Amino acid sequence: MENVTVLGAGSWGSALAQVLAENGHNTLVWTHRDEQADEINTLHKNGKYLPNIQLPETLVATSNLEEAILHSDIVVVAVPTKAIREVCSTMQPFMRNKKLFVHVSKGIEPDSLMRISEILTESLSPEAVEEIVVLSGPSHAEEVVLHHPTTITAACSNLDAAEKVQDLFMNNYFRVYTNDDVVGVELGGALKNVIALAAGISDGLNYGDNAKAALITRGLAEITRLGVKMGGNPFTFAGLTGMGDLIATCTSVHSRNWKAGNMLGKGLKLAEVLEEIGMVVEGVRTTKAAYQLSNRYDVPMPITTALFEILFNEKEPKVAVDELMIRMKKREIDLY
Amino acid sequence: MENVTVLGAGSWGSALAQVLAENGHNTLVWTHRDEQADEINTLHKNGKYLPNIQLPETLVATSNLEEAILHSDIVVVAVPTKAIREVCSTMQPFMRNKKLFVHVSKGIEPDSLMRISEILTESLSPEAVEEIVVLSGPSHAEEVVLHHPTTITAACSNLDAAEKVQDLFMNNYFRVYTNDDVVGVELGGALKNVIALAAGISDGLNYGDNAKAALITRGLAEITRLGVKMGGNPFTFAGLTGMGDLIATCTSVHSRNWKAGNMLGKGLKLAEVLEEIGMVVEGVRTTKAAYQLSNRYDVPMPITTALFEILFNEKEPKVAVDELMIRMKKREIDLY
Repeated sequence: MENVTVLGAGSWGSALAQVLAENGHNTLVWTHRDEQADEINTLHKNGKYLPNIQLPETLVATSNLEEAILHSDIVVVAVPTKAIREVCSTMQPFMRNKKLFVHVSKGIEPDSLMRISEILTESLSPEAVEEIVVLSGPSHAEEVVLHHPTTITAACSNLDAAEKVQDLFMNNYFRVYTNDDVVGVELGGALKNVIALAAGISDGLNYGDNAKAALITRGLAEITRLGVKMGGNPFTFAGLTGMGDLIATCTSVHSRNWKAGNMLGKGLKLAEVLEEIGMVVEGVRTTKAAYQLSNRYDVPMPITTALFEILFNEKEPKVAVDELMIRMKKREIDLY
Repeated sequence: MENVTVLGAGSWGSALAQVLAENGHNTLVWTHRDEQADEINTLHKNGKYLPNIQLPETLVATSNLEEAILHSDIVVVAVPTKAIREVCSTMQPFMRNKKLFVHVSKGIEPDSLMRISEILTESLSPEAVEEIVVLSGPSHAEEVVLHHPTTITAACSNLDAAEKVQDLFMNNYFRVYTNDDVVGVELGGALKNVIALAAGISDGLNYGDNAKAALITRGLAEITRLGVKMGGNPFTFAGLTGMGDLIATCTSVHSRNWKAGNMLGKGLKLAEVLEEIGMVVEGVRTTKAAYQLSNRYDVPMPITTALFEILFNEKEPKVAVDELMIRMKKREIDLY
């Protein structure tokens, strides 16, 4: 039984906090909103992000970041990618010893083109960090809180740290595997949101399951091309955190990225979509970063490029997707 | 403009015949049922397999196999796997010259463990066969007849023959790519039906999208392991006819194999399921063949084995799927 801190009480942070509390760990979740902390502590609910779910009574919340950090030596970082630098700089003064960081966000920072573990390393002093482990895989929060069987990967170049995270989270419905390929796991998790937006657009255009299956397949091919060039292991992209997460995100109604793409395909503008969804859609920022990465590493990424044009240059979704479908390459192998 | 014969007026044979007729080819479809040929010729409908679809008036049907064979030198074989030998022996006496065969069925014969192109080669005299091309990919008939964008692969060791098939079928909604890896394309198409049954069972048990994504991912891994050992190209399994078709089949309501699995997951017996669906469920026979192949080639295929136990040894679906989910391997790489 360990003391564990979870930073962020969105749907995923709350679901992971529930897993930890159910596993008997003394779990404290931090949210920057007082009223959300109150709701978790008094009603044992998180109505905005996990409606109709009764959280364990042993799960406690706080809106005091210092209290959260002092609570434990294991910190699960579950805030949106773009909030990570600010949260790190706010908590740095409270860090008195090395802690094990587990990050569960899926994104790449535009312009710096950093993965989350790189942002954490840059934003925290070396004296504050024991190890950084990424936890990623096909795992909709809405299903985890209902105890539906879920598989996920804990990755760290130091496998002892990955195994410590595995032991923390593992139970009979939440199966954790270890992997030492941090680059591959982080890229797979981040880049699949780009393809999920594209799959949502295809569905919004009513193009059907045949077209979507082709998009997902070619999407994994372009993710893998880039990821291998950046040092990832090709097997990682074929595994749970690559193909698995891609499928879960592109074919599930639970995915916000798919939902956002779907609305774009139906003709809504990006600003309208983001307002309508009302939560962070990581794929939008990640599309910009992925487009920049494809240029930096000189890797052709036709789906990412099409999406960049749709999101940032007002290209018509139908025109962009039609161009993807009728590329005139003739041999299948030329597609990959 | 070519004369083309399509053998079989199920949903896929009819959809392909529609594509050919719309491309301007003089297309004759053969069915062994007189009343189905009449329905196509007079009402331009195929009510049992493609309800609510108006077929092109230029598409003609016959129940006379001799007439069908004499009509053209290009024969599309779209009959269920288990009917192929009988159809071949019936048409052999009418073969007067070499023809180009295009097969579009997805299965492996139990016991002989032959792929469809091998069955055709064994069942037809060498004087009757110019080449055999397999046409396969993520392509639900129900979407093709609505002109939804679809990608598919024509594979033959002789790429000229594959390109001839590409030219026949290619149009603005039906995109055909070529590949020379017949083994990989045939195995991918056949074996994905086994995983679709498993995905259907998981859905029938209400295990959700996280579990299904994991099953599909590990499913492709075991298909690839076997397929590479049998001589297929690993890239083929990562492409449209492998991963693409697997996703389309496991995540679409159009898939009969997924539907059959879904009913098994909900507690129906195999015989009840087959009666309820009323069409051929290729995955059932293929599961037996895949199980035999995994033994012959000594390749561990845990999902195939679990399904074999469910279908043929009355193992409880929930017990089998739970065992798959909680295999105690700890490193992700050990799963593949």
